[in-house]
Amino acid sequence: MVKVLVVGYGVIGQRLADGVALQKDMELVGVVDAAVTLSTRSLKEKGMPYKLYAAFPEAKEKFEAAGIPVSGLLTDVLNDVDIVLDATTGGVGAKNKALYAQHGKKAIFQGGEKNEVADVFFHGYANYEKGLGADFLKLTSCNTTGLIRAVDCLDRKVGIEKVAITIVRRVADPGDYHRGLTNALQVDKAPSHQALDLMTIMPHVDATGILVHTPVTHGHFITVVATPKKDISAEEVIAAFKEHDRIRVVRLEDGFLGNASIFKYARDLGRPRGDLYEICVWEDTVVKSGKDVMFGIHIPQESVTIPESIDGIRAALEMQTDRLEAVETTNKYLGLGAWK
Amino acid sequence: MVKVLVVGYGVIGQRLADGVALQKDMELVGVVDAAVTLSTRSLKEKGMPYKLYAAFPEAKEKFEAAGIPVSGLLTDVLNDVDIVLDATTGGVGAKNKALYAQHGKKAIFQGGEKNEVADVFFHGYANYEKGLGADFLKLTSCNTTGLIRAVDCLDRKVGIEKVAITIVRRVADPGDYHRGLTNALQVDKAPSHQALDLMTIMPHVDATGILVHTPVTHGHFITVVATPKKDISAEEVIAAFKEHDRIRVVRLEDGFLGNASIFKYARDLGRPRGDLYEICVWEDTVVKSGKDVMFGIHIPQESVTIPESIDGIRAALEMQTDRLEAVETTNKYLGLGAWK
Amino acid sequence: MVKVLVVGYGVIGQRLADGVALQKDMELVGVVDAAVTLSTRSLKEKGMPYKLYAAFPEAKEKFEAAGIPVSGLLTDVLNDVDIVLDATTGGVGAKNKALYAQHGKKAIFQGGEKNEVADVFFHGYANYEKGLGADFLKLTSCNTTGLIRAVDCLDRKVGIEKVAITIVRRVADPGDYHRGLTNALQVDKAPSHQALDLMTIMPHVDATGILVHTPVTHGHFITVVATPKKDISAEEVIAAFKEHDRIRVVRLEDGFLGNASIFKYARDLGRPRGDLYEICVWEDTVVKSGKDVMFGIHIPQESVTIPESIDGIRAALEMQTDRLEAVETTNKYLGLGAWK
Amino acid sequence: MVKVLVVGYGVIGQRLADGVALQKDMELVGVVDAAVTLSTRSLKEKGMPYKLYAAFPEAKEKFEAAGIPVSGLLTDVLNDVDIVLDATTGGVGAKNKALYAQHGKKAIFQGGEKNEVADVFFHGYANYEKGLGADFLKLTSCNTTGLIRAVDCLDRKVGIEKVAITIVRRVADPGDYHRGLTNALQVDKAPSHQALDLMTIMPHVDATGILVHTPVTHGHFITVVATPKKDISAEEVIAAFKEHDRIRVVRLEDGFLGNASIFKYARDLGRPRGDLYEICVWEDTVVKSGKDVMFGIHIPQESVTIPESIDGIRAALEMQTDRLEAVETTNKYLGLGAWK
Repeated sequence: MVKVLVVGYGVIGQRLADGVALQKDMELVGVVDAAVTLSTRSLKEKGMPYKLYAAFPEAKEKFEAAGIPVSGLLTDVLNDVDIVLDATTGGVGAKNKALYAQHGKKAIFQGGEKNEVADVFFHGYANYEKGLGADFLKLTSCNTTGLIRAVDCLDRKVGIEKVAITIVRRVADPGDYHRGLTNALQVDKAPSHQALDLMTIMPHVDATGILVHTPVTHGHFITVVATPKKDISAEEVIAAFKEHDRIRVVRLEDGFLGNASIFKYARDLGRPRGDLYEICVWEDTVVKSGKDVMFGIHIPQESVTIPESIDGIRAALEMQTDRLEAVETTNKYLGLGAWK
Repeated sequence: MVKVLVVGYGVIGQRLADGVALQKDMELVGVVDAAVTLSTRSLKEKGMPYKLYAAFPEAKEKFEAAGIPVSGLLTDVLNDVDIVLDATTGGVGAKNKALYAQHGKKAIFQGGEKNEVADVFFHGYANYEKGLGADFLKLTSCNTTGLIRAVDCLDRKVGIEKVAITIVRRVADPGDYHRGLTNALQVDKAPSHQALDLMTIMPHVDATGILVHTPVTHGHFITVVATPKKDISAEEVIAAFKEHDRIRVVRLEDGFLGNASIFKYARDLGRPRGDLYEICVWEDTVVKSGKDVMFGIHIPQESVTIPESIDGIRAALEMQTDRLEAVETTNKYLGLGAWK
Repeated sequence: MVKVLVVGYGVIGQRLADGVALQKDMELVGVVDAAVTLSTRSLKEKGMPYKLYAAFPEAKEKFEAAGIPVSGLLTDVLNDVDIVLDATTGGVGAKNKALYAQHGKKAIFQGGEKNEVADVFFHGYANYEKGLGADFLKLTSCNTTGLIRAVDCLDRKVGIEKVAITIVRRVADPGDYHRGLTNALQVDKAPSHQALDLMTIMPHVDATGILVHTPVTHGHFITVVATPKKDISAEEVIAAFKEHDRIRVVRLEDGFLGNASIFKYARDLGRPRGDLYEICVWEDTVVKSGKDVMFGIHIPQESVTIPESIDGIRAALEMQTDRLEAVETTNKYLGLGAWK
Repeated sequence: MVKVLVVGYGVIGQRLADGVALQKDMELVGVVDAAVTLSTRSLKEKGMPYKLYAAFPEAKEKFEAAGIPVSGLLTDVLNDVDIVLDATTGGVGAKNKALYAQHGKKAIFQGGEKNEVADVFFHGYANYEKGLGADFLKLTSCNTTGLIRAVDCLDRKVGIEKVAITIVRRVADPGDYHRGLTNALQVDKAPSHQALDLMTIMPHVDATGILVHTPVTHGHFITVVATPKKDISAEEVIAAFKEHDRIRVVRLEDGFLGNASIFKYARDLGRPRGDLYEICVWEDTVVKSGKDVMFGIHIPQESVTIPESIDGIRAALEMQTDRLEAVETTNKYLGLGAWK
């Protein structure tokens, strides 16, 4: 049993903890946080399903003052784990890295950190082999993780030469009060970092993209214009996506009208927090333009990186050396693909 | 074991089914619907936790064509139940009533139906006794249900003479595509129906109110200006709310900044679908104006009526004749108040 | 002086009237409407800058009851005009066409009508010559009008082989209460009609596209991936757009952060209603992907079709037979390009 | 001719400048700003309708670098004016005050400054006399200005004992990218500052209130529960509001469905930027609760304080010593009441 610690119990950290707890070959040792938040308060009301450790002594005092049981400090628990999933706010992970290194522990950072924090910029499906045995991995961001799933899927079928993406980005998560847009779209400087990141992970693909922020909270929407090396029909594209355990193919006529339908469906499914690990592709959006293929995908920003983060544990600790064996093990424990 | 059937498996019907299934003295016989929707599709993907019955033969065919297992027709199962919770779209319940009466079954309708559909307009806390043994009850709507909880709570302490309410209403549920507002507030003709409904349930209170629709999905916000019969301080108001098992008192400094924080917290708690049965009162909003008390409450529109609906079963079937015994039984099985 | 009548005094009709009134070689005979609305009420408060005619006798009575002066009926005034700009609700124009034909009058319909209503599907810049002398023209819709401006501009420089577009559509106009989305993106079946319409106007270009509705009111955003026949650099693309009198090139660093900045700037400029006739291209979004060019444009949906509608009058009545002479005359009277 | 300088050319400053320019007994000497913004850029494109002065030398350089003509520095022009309208960002006005005092100039600050900045906290209708001859006035904020108009109107009819208000606040102005909420309501600590400010201006009225931020941009909505000293019917309330030149009474049946309808109507009226100086009261919201009166008002946040700011000039410079003569002069030049 591989022992895993989750550092940072926010939007991503909570979901990493739940995902790791489902892996039968991993043990979640606990979670670490630095502040009394709604997330850490919820642990108390739920009866402490996970042990909580404080990032530093002052944090411990604050948890105790709020009546939230604390099992110790990060520096205590760090000795007892094999690997850390760091889901702290962007920039903090880089500082934590020194501590992890000092304790001789491997760590996996989320997309908010700079690439320099890690030895390998990682995606479970696209470059699993690069992560084997690495000490420090950095995951792709939510949009890039989902995007690469789809592009890698087609790339392995027919080869992809280049992609041009348009990211219609949700601007805040449900419950965010520190950021937001009201009746406004916001344009970013192009090319978007997701296109650049895709080229880092998949260097044989040329990519560019434009990103626009929109005032919604339930998921990003990306359109992809992909130039394949070999001709591929819309039907073959759909079939390829249907085979993938981290991609769902949905249809407008079934009631999946947009991002909000997908969130509703995940809530109706009883998924914790209404989360979905899969990206969705709308069958109705798959079209051809000359040889190019165009399609639209949904990215559930809060939970999409969880499977690839767990793949990262498998790679860093060499739990599986085979890419497909690794991702399929992660999928099995997360219940991915079972619905088909 | 009282046998309950839920007719209409939409936003409310799904939650009624879950709530009834938690009552140890009730048996959920099944759920009934008329169309292939995301909600009925989710039943299939979850492995049919509840038996599904079709509202009529054509609906049965459609479910089967979509691969969703159907256990029979409404007219079949109706013979085997003690009471129906009707959560169909407004207006359909009135038509269904004839069928229920024909089969000699009691039924409880939701707030979308006209008052005439029922013998008694019902609220578990405020007029439980009126529902005892009744054949047809109609529940108050989501806003009115939550509002009455708060007003009844103070009324039983010091007597309430009159209330003036302002309802800041969410305009759509998450996943609604058939209604919505974009960058607009919408004003309704005053007095709002919630004020009128409150007077029907609590005829000794004078009530008026103004309602404004806002472009959000996670819960209504109501301010109440209440004129008490006896003087009551802000602290006593807060203490009274804290004692109530269907009211939570929250604070801005704890991170509850608005409706979205409450939804986030309920998701973090692991509540199915991120639902909350309780209304919330912000401690920070309780103020005095002369003798009057003013405060602000949050109404989780999708789930707030579930406890009072279950109270209705208890009243109609005379499972408990005592008001407090009834609501406390409902609360116990729903886990309400356990967090204190 | 060419005599013009505007039928339908809603969002588009009001702006057509204002645009025609600015043309020194045209006379706005009046506007026609069928109902007492905020738009027709505003005419009264402004002291009737335009004569109002009623679409039919009952409408005349309603205007008079509301105290809005009416100059007569559509059937009266129709005899005194050379051409009609029909901006009625989709479908009504098709019915009106018979009336116009009966009176021997030419007419120009907006994008909401079906293509069959007209002899020519028209765009001032892209196919002006087709409209020369035609009896019935139909304008492209707001998105298509703006999109074609940009594509036609590049097509005339280097030739465009194909385009793949992503339309991030505003779902409602400011003041719309009959439609709206709340916290939701909505996906349409691909290919979008705008791509198909572009191919009708520019049959030598292959086009496809995906459209997603977003909960904002101030303008659409479109990304275009264009495959040119001859190589063209990002700088040359920007230079081409800068030369065009109906295109503005804007920059993030100048404060144009998205659709809302553009609306704000147009208000600050003192443009009536905060309208802009030009589309905007963000210089910061112009990127290359291999030979392909990608860029993002803003479409001010309420006013963008006004210049091309006026071009349509010039074509139908053969006021100018030369394309550039026609559009430049329209531009001069609308003040387009003067700001450079 | 009184010489007026507007310092700060943002949302409020632009509108102050326009409002002053309309007063036939005032001369707008110029406007002052410190940065190249969309607002100052718009001056250039419009051909410099107002002279622009730079707040300090570095600002002058930046304007010149952006090609925006500058007429000099604030310190230069300050000698030539009688009074300053300071509409700078909150906190800057307090710093500017020393400069104004040093030059022996009177100044009027906006609601964003602290009360201490001024000798008198001012409202044209409610306490005009207090402002007579004062050196430094501070205006009430947008919500408070509009609220006091309505409360003062009734207070002068029948006397108002106390008010309890609910403010449904727009969270951002159109074009704001530095603040915003997405699918969230945000609750403030009660009592809201508007209630406290009302008591400062009208010390004989007891006031409290709750404020909730909503994700819209076009205007606030306030409900008022007012306890009058003498009984007053809903009809009499409506009649009193109809007489007031800075209040419009609107009706749902006329198409005024909410804040967005009012913005649309103001745009259709051709008001610059779609601005309205008046607050609106919905006739449909005026209801009674016992002796109390309840009603709902709309506050156009960008422009509502302009008339009272101009009243402030009249008071500070003792242009009119009579309250009604002063406000009626302001109203006449702004065209207020002319529409009746």
